Amino acid sequence: MLVKEIKELRSLIKAWKREGLSVGYVPTMGALHEGHESLIKRAVEENDKVVVSVFVNPTQFGPNEDFDSYPRNINKDLELCINAGAAIVFNPEPSEMYYGDKSTSVSVSGLTSVLCGAKRPGHFDGVCLVVSKFLNIVTPDKAYFGEKDAQQVAVIKRMVRDLNIDVEIVACPIIREEDGLAKSSRNTYLSKDERKAALVLSRSLEIAKDALRKGERNANNIKNSIKEVLNSEPLAKIDYVEIVDSDSLKSVEIIERNVLIPIAVYIGKTRLIDNFTFEI
Amino acid sequence: MLVKEIKELRSLIKAWKREGLSVGYVPTMGALHEGHESLIKRAVEENDKVVVSVFVNPTQFGPNEDFDSYPRNINKDLELCINAGAAIVFNPEPSEMYYGDKSTSVSVSGLTSVLCGAKRPGHFDGVCLVVSKFLNIVTPDKAYFGEKDAQQVAVIKRMVRDLNIDVEIVACPIIREEDGLAKSSRNTYLSKDERKAALVLSRSLEIAKDALRKGERNANNIKNSIKEVLNSEPLAKIDYVEIVDSDSLKSVEIIERNVLIPIAVYIGKTRLIDNFTFEI
Repeated sequence: MLVKEIKELRSLIKAWKREGLSVGYVPTMGALHEGHESLIKRAVEENDKVVVSVFVNPTQFGPNEDFDSYPRNINKDLELCINAGAAIVFNPEPSEMYYGDKSTSVSVSGLTSVLCGAKRPGHFDGVCLVVSKFLNIVTPDKAYFGEKDAQQVAVIKRMVRDLNIDVEIVACPIIREEDGLAKSSRNTYLSKDERKAALVLSRSLEIAKDALRKGERNANNIKNSIKEVLNSEPLAKIDYVEIVDSDSLKSVEIIERNVLIPIAVYIGKTRLIDNFTFEI
Repeated sequence: MLVKEIKELRSLIKAWKREGLSVGYVPTMGALHEGHESLIKRAVEENDKVVVSVFVNPTQFGPNEDFDSYPRNINKDLELCINAGAAIVFNPEPSEMYYGDKSTSVSVSGLTSVLCGAKRPGHFDGVCLVVSKFLNIVTPDKAYFGEKDAQQVAVIKRMVRDLNIDVEIVACPIIREEDGLAKSSRNTYLSKDERKAALVLSRSLEIAKDALRKGERNANNIKNSIKEVLNSEPLAKIDYVEIVDSDSLKSVEIIERNVLIPIAVYIGKTRLIDNFTFEI
């Protein structure tokens, strides 16, 4: 069922809650792929009813980013959601979500000053604002996020903790194409050559995994081997390669506890991200 | 019933909600007086169950303000709340409310750059953070605020709108001593002489009301007559005297629609506020 208005959504959800039904929630920007689908299916398994929001959120895009060209196909998205078992697809207009005066902001400091936060100023403020709004509208028991956006997961968990939002944040594993490329709505931007070149992301992370398995604990050595692989691809341009503490997202020199290894790489004009967590 | 922990409070409130009971909420910093009591009684009239929080919130005090000396008397507060019909008094320790890393902030721009917001930097960020936390913990149907803190009411209403918090904000009239002084927990700071001198606040506003009733619409003329009265009191020192649009809190020159007339005045070292709204 497609819902466009907050008021209607709230009244449907309140009716569920009166019946004692649990609610799972999957926030998306649409252009849904198997990664999103895995979140929806997990939510359907774990909750009585599932709401998926499809909203290309203007406040999390920078002025020179791809807000206008971001892929939109609500009919296809709706079909995927319903087939995966969602009860409601919430697809509000921007005017339903935001007032012109843009008064209120929600920020998480520290965690957002590194990685994508450093490269995309204001991005996580936009994410925090829209996610806090959606969580207040949907009031889910559990909300599902993909680990591909690992920093986003860390930031949202921190925000939920600090604002005492009564929801469990569930992080779900990255879904990949058969050849290893992490699923992303932005993969549709890639030309045929770029699509091949994009494999360098997952390939570089595999090299790092191997090195870690073999006992390498010097973060710089591992970053250098990742960079070496990425630099070997002429269509790739590194945005960042980092090794950070899984909780604080602070840079690590010697790997002694769980670390997140996130990378951001331009393939042509398309910025792709990938990561893995190494647990000790 | 006194509750100290978020977890216990949540489980009590969830049990009420399962029974279909409505919840009213009155946030306070304790040192309760008849002003707070009027909020609690109104909440008791309008809801099945009422929660009062008593929490001297460190994040809304500036470094040179009166956080340490702010009056605290939880036993007296508890008695007043129970007598007024509250079901729960929530009195958390600061460590129950805040983590050391102080990561997340909630801000309302515009409305907070004037009046008390201009005079108390960071004050409304602290208010927004703690109120958004309490609203997420208590999840009330209605929350009650005193009009004495008129700017706070405007800021909270804006935040609730922007973050889609599902609560009705109810603003309640100022309660005064018999001689006109607005009730305030800070009135206890006043010496006998200062207590007399403090009457100048309400008296100056009465002069303004008279002028408005007689048809005066020039804001400067009215501000000047307020200031004249305040300046006639040797123990009083004006912090601000303003006439602002009720909704936007922007300064007004000619009074053509509803205006808020707020004043802040030091009586000795004690900063007091008062206001009235003039409706056209």
